[in-house]
Amino acid sequence: MILTVTPNPAWDVTYHVGSVVPGGTHRVRAVAERAGGKGVNVARILHSLGHDVLVSAPAGGVHGELIRDDLTASGLGHAIIPIRGESRRTVTAVATDDGEATLFNEPGPELGTGEWAAFAAHVVDHGSRASAAVFSGSLPRNIDPHSYTALLEQVHAPSIVDASGHTLESALAARPDIVKPNADELAELTGCRDPLAGAVALIERGARAVVASLGPDGLLAVTGDTAYRAVPGERVRGNPTGAGDSVVAALAAGLALHEPWPHRLREAVALSAATVAAPVAGEFDQDSYRRQLAAVHLEEIHAPRHHG
Amino acid sequence: MILTVTPNPAWDVTYHVGSVVPGGTHRVRAVAERAGGKGVNVARILHSLGHDVLVSAPAGGVHGELIRDDLTASGLGHAIIPIRGESRRTVTAVATDDGEATLFNEPGPELGTGEWAAFAAHVVDHGSRASAAVFSGSLPRNIDPHSYTALLEQVHAPSIVDASGHTLESALAARPDIVKPNADELAELTGCRDPLAGAVALIERGARAVVASLGPDGLLAVTGDTAYRAVPGERVRGNPTGAGDSVVAALAAGLALHEPWPHRLREAVALSAATVAAPVAGEFDQDSYRRQLAAVHLEEIHAPRHHG
Repeated sequence: MILTVTPNPAWDVTYHVGSVVPGGTHRVRAVAERAGGKGVNVARILHSLGHDVLVSAPAGGVHGELIRDDLTASGLGHAIIPIRGESRRTVTAVATDDGEATLFNEPGPELGTGEWAAFAAHVVDHGSRASAAVFSGSLPRNIDPHSYTALLEQVHAPSIVDASGHTLESALAARPDIVKPNADELAELTGCRDPLAGAVALIERGARAVVASLGPDGLLAVTGDTAYRAVPGERVRGNPTGAGDSVVAALAAGLALHEPWPHRLREAVALSAATVAAPVAGEFDQDSYRRQLAAVHLEEIHAPRHHG
Repeated sequence: MILTVTPNPAWDVTYHVGSVVPGGTHRVRAVAERAGGKGVNVARILHSLGHDVLVSAPAGGVHGELIRDDLTASGLGHAIIPIRGESRRTVTAVATDDGEATLFNEPGPELGTGEWAAFAAHVVDHGSRASAAVFSGSLPRNIDPHSYTALLEQVHAPSIVDASGHTLESALAARPDIVKPNADELAELTGCRDPLAGAVALIERGARAVVASLGPDGLLAVTGDTAYRAVPGERVRGNPTGAGDSVVAALAAGLALHEPWPHRLREAVALSAATVAAPVAGEFDQDSYRRQLAAVHLEEIHAPRHHG
C-alpha cells in the first residue's frame, strides 16, 4: 500500500467559461467537481496504475463530506480524520477558447491541536505498513512546519515530499528519500536559478534525492552521487495541470517497488507527458503513456560535489 | 406579508483577492457565503426595513440545505420547495485594491415537471395572502417562459417583476403592476437606446408601470399616463452590487402600502444610493438612507403617448 498524506485537502470545482475577463460576469457553461489536493491527485494516478493506495487527510464540514464521498465513489482507499472546521474549496475557471486556467485557492481551515495529533497518529500508524509514503501540498495555516518535520521523522516508510516554501524547508530536516520541487520552488528556497545547483543545495540541507520538474524540459534528478536529466522524446502540447502530481506518483511507485533510478525517471517523464496530453486535467492516456515511455531521452550528467 | 419568488436561487460565494489576473493563481484572503438570488436579496432588504417577508424558492442538494439554513439564521420567512437537483452557486471575486467584482454564475439545476408544479402551487397559494409579490431573476433553464406567464396570471397580489430577456418578455403578457429593467435590459428587449422610448414600449406590451434603473442617474418611471425622473441628490461612489435589488425592495414596499408614485420613487432612489455607499454588497446604511431620502430630486417629465 502507498500512503498519500494530504494535510490540507480541497473540494476542487472547475468552471468552463468562454474566457476570463476581470470585472466581467461569466456564464458558467459546465461545472465539474471532485476531491482534490495534491495527495488526492497522486492517489488517483497511482490507483489507475493499479497500486493499492490509502489517502490520509483531515477534513470537515460540507466539503469534508463531499471529499469523503467522492474518494469512496472513486474507489480510493481513504481515512478521513474528522475536524470541526470547513474544508477548503478551489475554483478553477477554464477558458473554452484557449484552455487557460484561472485559479482561486481558499485558505482552508485551522486545525485544533487534538485534530492535528489524531491525523499525525493515523499517518504514523499506517506509514509503518506502507511501501512508500507521499507527503503532498500545503499545511493547514495554523500548523507549525516543525510539527511536519516531527511527523515525517516518525513515519517508517520510504518517503517523497512535494511541497514548497517553509513546508518543504521543514521537510528537509527529516531527511526524506525524495523531494520533488519545480524550478520556481527550487529557486525560491535556495536562491539558485540553476536547477542543478539548487538540487545540490537541497541535498546539502537534508534531502537524500532531489527530482526537479522543469516543465516541458522534463526532469533533473540528483540522487546522492549521481545526476540525471530525463527529457520527453516528443514535445507535448496540452494542459499541464496535474503533470507534477504524475511525476510524484511515478516516483512513489518506483520507490515502493525499489526500481533503479533510470527506470523511475523514464516512468515519471512519460506519465507526466501523457497527463499533459490528456483532455481532462490530472488524467492520462494509457496509449500515450506507453508511446512516451519508449521515447524518453535519459542522460547521466555528472556526479555533483556536495558535503552531505 | 410580501412574497418574494425566486425560481433559481443561489448559494453566493464571495472571494476577496488581491486582483483578478486571467491565467493567474489567486490566494483567497477571505471567503463570505450566503443565500442569494435576486428574490432573496430583495427579501433581506425588506426584512431590514421591518417588513414581514416570505421567500419562496425551489432548492435542493448541498447548496439547497445551505440556502435554507442561512435563510433561517437570517430570520427571513421562507418556504423552500425541495428538488432533486443541486442548487447553483455563484462565485464573485472582489479585488481588494479597487473593489472590482468578477462574477461566475453557475447555470443551476433543471426542475422536474412535478417540482415546478409544486413550486407554482405554493406561490399561488401564498400570493393570495400577500400584500405584494416580487418575481425576481432567471428561470430554471428547462422551464418554458410561458409557464412563468401562467404563474404570474394566477397570483392575486400586486406584482413587481425584475427579470430580463425571455423571462421579462413572458412576464409582460401577465400584465404585472411594475417591471424594473435596467437600461441594458430595456435596450436588449425593445431595441430602444432611449430609456423613455423603451419604457413606453414595455407599457405597450403589457406592463402597467415601468421603472428603469439608470445606475448613477437614478430612475425613470412610466406609470401609465405619467412619467418621472428621480435622481440622487448626492453622487455616490461605492459598490453597485445589490443597488437594483434595493430599488425593487422599495417599490415592493410602496406597492404593498399603496404609497403614491412620488413617494415610492424617492424611497427607491435613496435606498439604492445607500446600498451603493455601504461597505458590504447588498446592505445599506440607515443614516445614509435618511440623508439621501431628503436629497432626492424628483421631476415629472411628461405624459408619454402610448396605445395601451
